[in-house]
Amino acid sequence: MSQRLVNLDDYEAAARSLLDEQAFEYVASGAGSETTLRANRTAFDDLELLPRMLHDVSRIDTTVELFGKIHSLPVLLAPTGYHRLMHPLGELETILGANMADCTLVAANFATETFVSVQAQAARPQWFQMYVQSDRTFTRDLLQEVLSAGCEAVCVTVDQPVNAIRDREARIGFELPKGMERANLKRLGSAVAGAAHSPQGFHIYNAVRASDLTWKDLEWLRGECPVPLMLKGILHPDDAVMAQQSGCDGIIVSNHGGRALDGVQSTIAALPAIVEAVGPGMTVLMDGGIRRGTDVVKALALGAKAVLLGRPYLFGLAVDGAAGVARVVNLLRMECQIAMGLLGCQDLSQIQPQLLHRKR
Amino acid sequence: MSQRLVNLDDYEAAARSLLDEQAFEYVASGAGSETTLRANRTAFDDLELLPRMLHDVSRIDTTVELFGKIHSLPVLLAPTGYHRLMHPLGELETILGANMADCTLVAANFATETFVSVQAQAARPQWFQMYVQSDRTFTRDLLQEVLSAGCEAVCVTVDQPVNAIRDREARIGFELPKGMERANLKRLGSAVAGAAHSPQGFHIYNAVRASDLTWKDLEWLRGECPVPLMLKGILHPDDAVMAQQSGCDGIIVSNHGGRALDGVQSTIAALPAIVEAVGPGMTVLMDGGIRRGTDVVKALALGAKAVLLGRPYLFGLAVDGAAGVARVVNLLRMECQIAMGLLGCQDLSQIQPQLLHRKR
Amino acid sequence: MSQRLVNLDDYEAAARSLLDEQAFEYVASGAGSETTLRANRTAFDDLELLPRMLHDVSRIDTTVELFGKIHSLPVLLAPTGYHRLMHPLGELETILGANMADCTLVAANFATETFVSVQAQAARPQWFQMYVQSDRTFTRDLLQEVLSAGCEAVCVTVDQPVNAIRDREARIGFELPKGMERANLKRLGSAVAGAAHSPQGFHIYNAVRASDLTWKDLEWLRGECPVPLMLKGILHPDDAVMAQQSGCDGIIVSNHGGRALDGVQSTIAALPAIVEAVGPGMTVLMDGGIRRGTDVVKALALGAKAVLLGRPYLFGLAVDGAAGVARVVNLLRMECQIAMGLLGCQDLSQIQPQLLHRKR
Amino acid sequence: MSQRLVNLDDYEAAARSLLDEQAFEYVASGAGSETTLRANRTAFDDLELLPRMLHDVSRIDTTVELFGKIHSLPVLLAPTGYHRLMHPLGELETILGANMADCTLVAANFATETFVSVQAQAARPQWFQMYVQSDRTFTRDLLQEVLSAGCEAVCVTVDQPVNAIRDREARIGFELPKGMERANLKRLGSAVAGAAHSPQGFHIYNAVRASDLTWKDLEWLRGECPVPLMLKGILHPDDAVMAQQSGCDGIIVSNHGGRALDGVQSTIAALPAIVEAVGPGMTVLMDGGIRRGTDVVKALALGAKAVLLGRPYLFGLAVDGAAGVARVVNLLRMECQIAMGLLGCQDLSQIQPQLLHRKR
Ligand SMILES: Cc1cc2nc3c(=O)[nH]c(=O)nc-3n(C[C@H](O)[C@H](O)[C@H](O)COP(=O)(O)O)c2cc1C
Ligand SMILES: Cc1cc2nc3c(=O)[nH]c(=O)nc-3n(C[C@H](O)[C@H](O)[C@H](O)COP(=O)(O)O)c2cc1C
Ligand SMILES: Cc1cc2nc3c(=O)[nH]c(=O)nc-3n(C[C@H](O)[C@H](O)[C@H](O)COP(=O)(O)O)c2cc1C
Ligand SMILES: Cc1cc2nc3c(=O)[nH]c(=O)nc-3n(C[C@H](O)[C@H](O)[C@H](O)COP(=O)(O)O)c2cc1C
Repeated sequence: MSQRLVNLDDYEAAARSLLDEQAFEYVASGAGSETTLRANRTAFDDLELLPRMLHDVSRIDTTVELFGKIHSLPVLLAPTGYHRLMHPLGELETILGANMADCTLVAANFATETFVSVQAQAARPQWFQMYVQSDRTFTRDLLQEVLSAGCEAVCVTVDQPVNAIRDREARIGFELPKGMERANLKRLGSAVAGAAHSPQGFHIYNAVRASDLTWKDLEWLRGECPVPLMLKGILHPDDAVMAQQSGCDGIIVSNHGGRALDGVQSTIAALPAIVEAVGPGMTVLMDGGIRRGTDVVKALALGAKAVLLGRPYLFGLAVDGAAGVARVVNLLRMECQIAMGLLGCQDLSQIQPQLLHRKR
Repeated sequence: MSQRLVNLDDYEAAARSLLDEQAFEYVASGAGSETTLRANRTAFDDLELLPRMLHDVSRIDTTVELFGKIHSLPVLLAPTGYHRLMHPLGELETILGANMADCTLVAANFATETFVSVQAQAARPQWFQMYVQSDRTFTRDLLQEVLSAGCEAVCVTVDQPVNAIRDREARIGFELPKGMERANLKRLGSAVAGAAHSPQGFHIYNAVRASDLTWKDLEWLRGECPVPLMLKGILHPDDAVMAQQSGCDGIIVSNHGGRALDGVQSTIAALPAIVEAVGPGMTVLMDGGIRRGTDVVKALALGAKAVLLGRPYLFGLAVDGAAGVARVVNLLRMECQIAMGLLGCQDLSQIQPQLLHRKR
Repeated sequence: MSQRLVNLDDYEAAARSLLDEQAFEYVASGAGSETTLRANRTAFDDLELLPRMLHDVSRIDTTVELFGKIHSLPVLLAPTGYHRLMHPLGELETILGANMADCTLVAANFATETFVSVQAQAARPQWFQMYVQSDRTFTRDLLQEVLSAGCEAVCVTVDQPVNAIRDREARIGFELPKGMERANLKRLGSAVAGAAHSPQGFHIYNAVRASDLTWKDLEWLRGECPVPLMLKGILHPDDAVMAQQSGCDGIIVSNHGGRALDGVQSTIAALPAIVEAVGPGMTVLMDGGIRRGTDVVKALALGAKAVLLGRPYLFGLAVDGAAGVARVVNLLRMECQIAMGLLGCQDLSQIQPQLLHRKR
Repeated sequence: MSQRLVNLDDYEAAARSLLDEQAFEYVASGAGSETTLRANRTAFDDLELLPRMLHDVSRIDTTVELFGKIHSLPVLLAPTGYHRLMHPLGELETILGANMADCTLVAANFATETFVSVQAQAARPQWFQMYVQSDRTFTRDLLQEVLSAGCEAVCVTVDQPVNAIRDREARIGFELPKGMERANLKRLGSAVAGAAHSPQGFHIYNAVRASDLTWKDLEWLRGECPVPLMLKGILHPDDAVMAQQSGCDGIIVSNHGGRALDGVQSTIAALPAIVEAVGPGMTVLMDGGIRRGTDVVKALALGAKAVLLGRPYLFGLAVDGAAGVARVVNLLRMECQIAMGLLGCQDLSQIQPQLLHRKR
């Protein structure tokens, strides 16, 4: 089947015809009128590439070092909830694909399999994405649990203190199917672990994500977390600087893949001002709309150290299980190599702002 | 039915299939080539939101004070004619929805039920939208009547001294159905109270709206009106300043929902220069194209104190009567709360220009 | 029939279904890829109107004086060839419509009825549009003939020294039907008077339009022409100045309705620089894409003294003969009045640049 | 058949219905998401033409001198592979069309007939487009062979050191049909001469194009090449300057017709900065998206000495063999003459930057 799927977008089309509507809509949709979801893609088109000729590109090196570890590609798998909607084995299947593609998975707080059980299958240690819960003790205990299991780094997602507007989910009445729950949150009781993530009636808060988190809590988290700590969901340079001052090791410039507040800037447009604000001392990652090797190159040219990939690997998982995840990553790897070769770049250090020209 | 209607635009689609063509076209259409009607929506997309993270948003307050009264949401129901086209009970049904949603209705001069009879059902005092008639005595008498009935504020609509071009209405030969008339104008005789509001043949004037109104008349009106007086339909900063100098308490930046002169600026684009021109001393409201909570936030960030909602509540009325009106308002309320929460704002005072970035 | 036709574009749609393909394509099409044809319309959308309120508009005056004559509307009927394609009586029918609408027709050199015969029916003297022929003596004789018949002004069209690319005409093999010819050119022999106006094979020149016309010829023409002389087809400010220096009384900013060189600027975009270059001493008219009253107002605000209307009146002629021509003009008249009323203008002198705001 | 084909785009439509999918997709498609393929066309629309009137254009001269030879039109046939996909006689048919249209063919390295055999039929000496192979000796020998056969100039294509992403080819599994091979490379063995030109599996390199070519190799090539030497595929002003410093006689500003790296600038947008960087001493050609006479004029106005035409003549070849090639060129010739005539230009030297206005 996946022979004919030649790029990442093809996986979305294939998944659409394979998945049931609930699962597909959950993954593919964005917040509000999906303005930001679309902008995450179209904003890449405003950046033109300026290739240089007659560089020897007979060897191309895509490796990058993040927090002291080597990654064979500047691409990680973004944290995304509920993989069992895509595949019966859920995250346990995803990790096999990540292994095949030699790629790090950022495990979601809202995974349908526990961090610990997935880590047991992982060739590379997972990173862990955290939502802080109202019950801070629970949060701390969960953090200790993933750290003990070998978690390499922690990303705290900060861009959804209240539920987002998800019209496509609301229209189909999306809810977690019976028997599926947020495995990492099981100890909070199954009412909570299975709770809906959308506004119920007109209620905008959620049992599994604190709405009162502030920079103060971050100091506490920093203390609890001996591994690299990142904030995920930063869009404003001033927040990036605050993250830095709060002792974070990195930030992920992200708008949650256009799923949180609709109408915010695309991440590729937001990236440069943030990179400038924090300076070279901080690790800046980004995600949102990465679908092509040239997208990766553009993000790196604007100062991201690496990017995260969201929906496409979920569609790979839906279409072909682990093999689909791996093929999605490897297509992107090939596209990165080709982009570098045609730009005249031998390794990632040569991907610099001068390769880009802002259209209009 | 309205369960599946998850946002304000859904109500338009639903109304289209429920209403007869005459009624739907009357409400949905705009002037001329509908350039301004479209611009009223698309101009919001030129404004990107810049959210801030890690603010405590566990309590969100959407109340605003207008002329000394508290409104639970910075949203009023805009004056719109002929509610009986939407619902057999017309404005008498609308007001029940306004009551349910704790929202102020700006009663239209061209209502199909009298201000007085609607006010009798109103939980909150209505505002009154005035067109000045050629017969100024009649106008003064009507004004006294609504004031006695408890009208809280008066908006004089100034943007239609002549009939507008309404191609979609002309094409279907729109006219008020037999038995429906402008109840507030009944004393002018039923020929006038039921007169067409579009050009007849090539005649551009209208029996029920004066075309010779000037700033002089405003002095007179100011004298007759002990409650807050606003002008509705201001688009030019200089006119806003003249309104201020003429003793008006507020202005409504409006292009009549794209129904008056086609080709004028969208209201969200016109707003900032007007706010700057009049300074903080004057209450500036706006309407036109408000369909999402983020639209409300953008208008407030640019200096509007509150906004008015037009077509969507009419569609709510058509789809579900009072319950539809209330649900439309409450959807917008929820969207406002979510927008504020995701932006990091606890109350309306925190909605400031820095939250916006002008694209292009 | 034309009851349901509520604006000028409606006449195009109606004509499309009534006319045979040859005639419709001839009129509706533009040169090349029709980039300029489209730009002539879309460029109006880049100009937003800034209306002013509370001006007395109970009387609106649309009259304008051109070369000492009063026109009831700042709109003339542009010169267009071959009216018998639209209506069996051709220009003899058109002129009746012009009479009904009290509007001046600019008779085309390539009319299918002679200037003289049409002038015999005309309530207002026609203007005459000239193409200079290779045989300058013939041209001079024709000029004397139309002048004797009462021609009020002469426009020399200068924008088609070679045949244009007309793909839609080429595709259907457009040619003048048997029995139709350029009546004014009959004395050149019927081979010439009926000659094709498109490239034949790869031959780009045309028997009925000189390709070697220069500013020198203009001096000669000026000498032959005691009535106001204009150049039609000017797009460059320097050419406008040269026209002025050559003693022309006016220019018509025109790109031949997007039928000459595709890829040139829209006329509404070209207008302001030309008006500035020639100063107030010269009469500047414009045409191209006028379809709405607001288009007329925009052109006047940018300095045009009046505009010419092309395709729409031809469609009116096709749909309803003289009555169609008249109704098209009167629809535009009403739209002009409404635009002025809603802008707060009582007469054309009040239509000033400040009414416009350039978008983007 | 080709009577009804009135412009170059029509030939694409006709070829689509005549060719088998493999051949059509190979020619028509571009790299990646085809952003650059589209930009190559749309970027021409950002340049508006400023025509001048009343110039004598009764004689129009389109000849240009390149490296001491006169060309009747500033248009060459770009190097494109595998003409036997279009026509059974391949390049042997193409050259007959080039002869008929008095036009120079730039023979592709990847032709399906040898340079020598095609040259034997050529009225004008061909230019030769080279890819340097890993085996530099082979490359040198081939170069000597084409030079002996009378090659007039050499273009080294430098923009594809690695295989490009060609989704449309991948989707249909494009490969050279049995019995077709790169005739000029036959001596490398038929495995190589027939090797696929797209990534195989995830392998990005290609047996027939070196990936380690650098500016050093260029010195060597310069020494081997007594005729004019050009680089094809330059997009960056600095690379243009390096070409100049390396002793090249010319450059071709090209993005390989949007077939190499997707996301790079359109060539018409890239052209001006390159022309400025190299100054008047160097011959700058360009290709990419030329479909209209006005495109040729725009390229010349921005400093190109001539342009190359790619896909359209292939479609001509597919539709009508040599006659189709010739008609495509002659349509373009006529369009160039018309554009010049309507702009007021008698010869190419009059095509200057002042004829253009950059929109937006
Ligand atoms: C189905 C889905 C679920 C997601 N769940 C989470 C989550 O639980 N936590 C989180 O921080 N981000 C979540 N995200 C956001 C992703 O981490 C990432 O920011 C986004 O998908 C990147 O954009 P892309 O999908 O365009 O690549 C989710 C995204 C999707 C598509
Ligand atoms: C059906 C309809 C009738 C209207 N009637 C009036 C009216 O009688 N007086 C008035 O001042 N505005 C009238 N308006 C304009 C509204 O007050 C308001 O300015 C506009 O609807 C806001 O734009 P929106 O519909 O996009 O929200 C009307 C609007 C509509 C849609
Ligand atoms: C069918 C047709 C024939 C025309 N013939 C002539 C002509 O013979 N002489 C001339 O100067 N302009 C001619 N024009 C151009 C018009 O005078 C005018 O410039 C143009 O139509 C204005 O644009 P519009 O059609 O968008 O209103 C012709 C236009 C059309 C549509
Ligand atoms: C089917 C096809 C094959 C091509 N093969 C080659 C080639 O072998 N070598 C080369 O330098 N350029 C090649 N090109 C690029 C052309 O030389 C030229 O740059 C491009 O086609 C110009 O763009 P256009 O097709 O829009 O006119 C090819 C283009 C096409 C369409």
